[in-house]
Amino acid sequence: MTLSRRSPGKIYMPQGFSFSAACAGIKASERLDLGLVEAASGTTAAAVFTQNRVVAAPVEIGRAILATSHGRIRAVIVNSGNANCATGNHAYLACQQICRAAGRLLGLPSEEVFPSSTGIIGLPLPTEKILAALATLISERGATKKHVDLFTRAIMTTDTRPKLASVRFRSRKGTVTVLGVAKGSGMIHPQLATMLVYLFTDVAATPAELRQLLRGACEQTFNCISVDGDTSTNDTVLLLASGNSGVRLNQESTRKLFADALSEVCQSLAQQIVSDGEGVQHVIRLSIEQASSQKEALQVARAVAHSLLVKTAWAGADPNWGRILAAVGSSGVPINSDKVSIFIGSQLVCRNGASCRFDERRAHQHLAKPVCDVRITLQRGLASTKFLTTDLTADYVRINADYST
Amino acid sequence: MTLSRRSPGKIYMPQGFSFSAACAGIKASERLDLGLVEAASGTTAAAVFTQNRVVAAPVEIGRAILATSHGRIRAVIVNSGNANCATGNHAYLACQQICRAAGRLLGLPSEEVFPSSTGIIGLPLPTEKILAALATLISERGATKKHVDLFTRAIMTTDTRPKLASVRFRSRKGTVTVLGVAKGSGMIHPQLATMLVYLFTDVAATPAELRQLLRGACEQTFNCISVDGDTSTNDTVLLLASGNSGVRLNQESTRKLFADALSEVCQSLAQQIVSDGEGVQHVIRLSIEQASSQKEALQVARAVAHSLLVKTAWAGADPNWGRILAAVGSSGVPINSDKVSIFIGSQLVCRNGASCRFDERRAHQHLAKPVCDVRITLQRGLASTKFLTTDLTADYVRINADYST
Repeated sequence: MTLSRRSPGKIYMPQGFSFSAACAGIKASERLDLGLVEAASGTTAAAVFTQNRVVAAPVEIGRAILATSHGRIRAVIVNSGNANCATGNHAYLACQQICRAAGRLLGLPSEEVFPSSTGIIGLPLPTEKILAALATLISERGATKKHVDLFTRAIMTTDTRPKLASVRFRSRKGTVTVLGVAKGSGMIHPQLATMLVYLFTDVAATPAELRQLLRGACEQTFNCISVDGDTSTNDTVLLLASGNSGVRLNQESTRKLFADALSEVCQSLAQQIVSDGEGVQHVIRLSIEQASSQKEALQVARAVAHSLLVKTAWAGADPNWGRILAAVGSSGVPINSDKVSIFIGSQLVCRNGASCRFDERRAHQHLAKPVCDVRITLQRGLASTKFLTTDLTADYVRINADYST
Repeated sequence: MTLSRRSPGKIYMPQGFSFSAACAGIKASERLDLGLVEAASGTTAAAVFTQNRVVAAPVEIGRAILATSHGRIRAVIVNSGNANCATGNHAYLACQQICRAAGRLLGLPSEEVFPSSTGIIGLPLPTEKILAALATLISERGATKKHVDLFTRAIMTTDTRPKLASVRFRSRKGTVTVLGVAKGSGMIHPQLATMLVYLFTDVAATPAELRQLLRGACEQTFNCISVDGDTSTNDTVLLLASGNSGVRLNQESTRKLFADALSEVCQSLAQQIVSDGEGVQHVIRLSIEQASSQKEALQVARAVAHSLLVKTAWAGADPNWGRILAAVGSSGVPINSDKVSIFIGSQLVCRNGASCRFDERRAHQHLAKPVCDVRITLQRGLASTKFLTTDLTADYVRINADYST
C-alpha cells in the first residue's frame, strides 16, 4: 500500500514552495546573506523557538505572527550575519519594516511573512541594505533544487556546508514530500540553539496537527544534540505545509507515515548540524541506557555531553572513561557509581564503576573515527536515550575567540 | 586589643604541625608525589568533600574516619598522580593499607590518619611504591617553611605553581595562625572539584565549631570559583586545629577574628587556584548584582562562567557582551532581558538588554588584562554574588586532549 523512500543525497521538492537568495551586504564577506521562501495560498504552519529568556526580535515577532494569522504563513524572510537581537526598539522596527516591505512586494499581508535572523548579537540590523535587496530577491525566486540550495547557503554563518534532507512517501491518496533545510554549527544545545530549521511539506494539515507533529519530531532530534551547550537567542524550527499534494492526515496510517518522514528529515538535519559543529573532529553517538526515566537519561546525557574534560579527551581520541564516570556522577541524578558501566565502541571499558581489562589501542582507534559510539548503562530502570554530541577542539576555541573583533 | 596581619607572600607557621614530601614514583615525571602532615596530639578536624556522586576511595574513607574519630585527626597522607578512584575494591584496600602503615610508623591508630589522592581516575594505585616510601617520608618531617613548601609541591598535578596563604592575628589570649595550602587547576567548579585544600591552625576549637566555620568560609570562596565546570571525584577541604596557641573560640570577638582569618586564607587560595587554571590567560571577576536571592545570583554567575562562547570570547579579549546576555538568558532564572545591564571594567556596554555606545577599544584593553571585571545587574532585587572564573583557551584543550594517552 505504501512506500517510503529515503534520500541519501537526493533532494525531493515538495509542491507549493519557491525559494530565493541574495547578497544584501550584511556579511563583510559578500556571501549570500538573505533568503526568501514563498509558500502556496492556504499553507499552514507551526514553529518551536529557543527557550532562552533573551530572545531576538524576529523570534518574538514570528511567534506573534503565528498567533495572529492562526498558523497561516505565506513567506519566510531570513538574513544571516546579524541576529537582530539586543538592539532595543531598533530590532523590532527593523524586523517589522522588512516583513511589511516583503509582504508588499509579494502582495501579501505582513502578518503572513515570517522573519528569522542569525549572526552577531547587539549590532543594529542594516535594514536599508536588506530593503534594497528585496526586489531582486523576490524576482529571482523559483522552485528548483538550485533555488533551494542557494536559499540554504544564504542562511549559513560559520557552517562549512549547506544542510538539506528530504523524504518522499506514497499513500493511497498521493505522494507526499518533506524537505528540510538547516543552519547551525555553534551555540548548539538541547532546547534549540543558533539553529534555524525550515521544514517544507505538501501534505495538507491543520496548524494544530502540525504543532503536535513538530513537537514530537523535535523532542527526539534537535533536543538531543549538543555542540557547546550554549543556547541561542534566535533558534527557530518552522514547519510549513502547502497542502498541494492533496493528501490529508485524517487516516492514522498516513499520519504515521508523515510523522516518520518528518522525524527522519529532522534526524538527518540534526546529524548534519552536529557533524558541522565548529572545530568538530569527532561526532559522538552517546547512548544512555537503563535510566529510571527518559528525563533522567537525558540529564545524564547532557552532563556527559557538556563536560569540558570529557569533550577534550574525545578531541584526543583518549579512552579516558574516568572523566565520563565523573561527569555521570555530577549530573545530579542519584546514580550508584557501583552500577555504572561504560562502553567505547563495542568494548566494555568500565564495569560497575570500576576499571576492567580492555584493549586501549582498540578503544583509541574507535574514538579516532569521525563518528564514534559511547554507551553508558545505569542499572536504574528501562528508559534510554540517544544523544548526538561532539568533541571540543582547539579549533573551536580559535573560531570563537575572535568572532566580533 | 586585636591586630590582624595579612601576608602578601609571607608565610606564617601555625604551631603543632610538621610536614614532609617524597618521590614515591607514582608520577612518571619522577617529581614529588607523596606528602605527609603530622598534627599535635588533641588536634581537631572538619572537612567538606566533593558533591559528585562518584567519589574516590580516600574521600569515602576520610569521611568515615572523621565520623569514627569524632573529628580527631593526627596525620594526613596525600598522593598525587593517581586519584585512587574507580578501581573497585582495590582502591579501598590500597587506601586502608596505606593509612594503617603510616599510622604504625607514626605510632597512631589508623583511624586518625586522613587519606587524599589526586590524579588520573581508573588506574590502580601503586600501593607498593607508596608503602616503600613511607619510612623516609616520615623520618624527614619538619615544621619549617621549607617543609610546607615541599608538601605543597608534592600534592600538585597540572598546577604550575604551589599555592599557599596564611594569616596571623592576635587576641588577648595569644597569637593565632591560619595556614592553607591547595592544589588544583583543572576540573575546578563550584561544589568543589579536583581541588585539595588543607588548612592548619593552632587555635583551640571543637570539631563542631570547625565544621560550622569551614562551611561558612567555603561558601563564599571555593564554591564561588569555576575553571571548567567539571566536578571531581576527590575534592577535599580539610581544616585541622592543633590548639597549640592556647587561644579558644569561646569569645565572640576571637571567633570573628578567626572566621575572618580563615575566610581570607580560603579566598587567597581560591584566587590562586583560578589564576593557575589550565591554559588560563585571563581571570574574570564576575559580579552579579540586583538578583532576587543569593542562590539566583549564583545561578546566573555559573551560567555565564560555564558558557563556552563567553569563555572563548574572553580568551580573545573580545567585548562580545551579546554572548554574556544570551548566557544570562539561558541560566534558568526568569530574568527580563530589558532589565539586564552589563559592564566591562567600569564601562557600561549593554544597557537594559540593548547595545549602547561604548569605547570598544577600551573594553578590549580591559579584557586583555590578566585580571578583569565583568558586572551584570538584573534589576530583580538586592542580592549579589562575586564569582571568580577564567577564559577558555586553545591551551586548555591541548592540556586536556592528551592526559592519559
